[in-house]
Amino acid sequence: MGKGGNKTMVLSILVDNTAGVLSRVAGLFSRRGYNIDSLTVGETENSEISRMTVAVTGDEAILEQITKQLSKLEDVREIVELFPTTSVCRELVLIKVATTHAERTELNTIANIFRANVVDVSADFMMMELTGSTNKVDAFIKLLDGFEIKELVRTGITGLTRGISVED
Amino acid sequence: MGKGGNKTMVLSILVDNTAGVLSRVAGLFSRRGYNIDSLTVGETENSEISRMTVAVTGDEAILEQITKQLSKLEDVREIVELFPTTSVCRELVLIKVATTHAERTELNTIANIFRANVVDVSADFMMMELTGSTNKVDAFIKLLDGFEIKELVRTGITGLTRGISVED
Repeated sequence: MGKGGNKTMVLSILVDNTAGVLSRVAGLFSRRGYNIDSLTVGETENSEISRMTVAVTGDEAILEQITKQLSKLEDVREIVELFPTTSVCRELVLIKVATTHAERTELNTIANIFRANVVDVSADFMMMELTGSTNKVDAFIKLLDGFEIKELVRTGITGLTRGISVED
Repeated sequence: MGKGGNKTMVLSILVDNTAGVLSRVAGLFSRRGYNIDSLTVGETENSEISRMTVAVTGDEAILEQITKQLSKLEDVREIVELFPTTSVCRELVLIKVATTHAERTELNTIANIFRANVVDVSADFMMMELTGSTNKVDAFIKLLDGFEIKELVRTGITGLTRGISVED
């Protein structure tokens, strides 16, 4: 561990939409033994550019070094750190829960409270979709603890800076 | 191009939560010159395992080869192809649009029609969040064509197989 202490950092990275960029970015973290908490990469309004959102926890000083190295990659165009106070960060989760007929009503109530959508129902399963902050998604999953979660997928964090900067 | 013709494939991949796995998976695609359309990787109900969702378009025969190579990676536990008829696939998009006061009402109407959430408003900008199928997200972005989109981020596709298999 270095000098800076641990932090969780969310980076929004604009990259050229090339075949190797994802593996290069991921490689920068893994070569330092850094496990990415989550990563999403998808298209932007410009088909030649993709936007990556990376969440990573680790030593502050090393994360700073990695960010500097990232900015030197040829296909990286812009790196912005998303801070909780100046950005909107969201996650999407899909959860498939095993249900009896009796449990379905209770699950539906939980879904309503969290404004989650029920996206699939079958005799034995119910699938729900929720979009929200990481805290909200965590709380939702925790509330489903008593049920049998069959499968769960989270996109990981994505986000944009707010319209008005509240930084100094 | 090979024999199989082009296809778009969505793979749901369960992997060990190791530092190098993302770079290894991404590398398998990029070494073949394959540009991943989107990728999300996030936690599952088990902190030692992550679930990756990869969308990729390309030659069917080569994609099959890549899938086989993926399954041989030590930290890959399971690969499932998500088919439109037997799975629920979703994307999350955040869009920041420049707005005048007059445009705000129109934007709000569009948001309501798509059940998008307005997540941030400032004097000059409005940020909206939408979760839906790729088609729905595409349609929403298209409808915003007349506005000035300042920033846009998509998580890319994530999904789970439905409760009942409708495959033969």
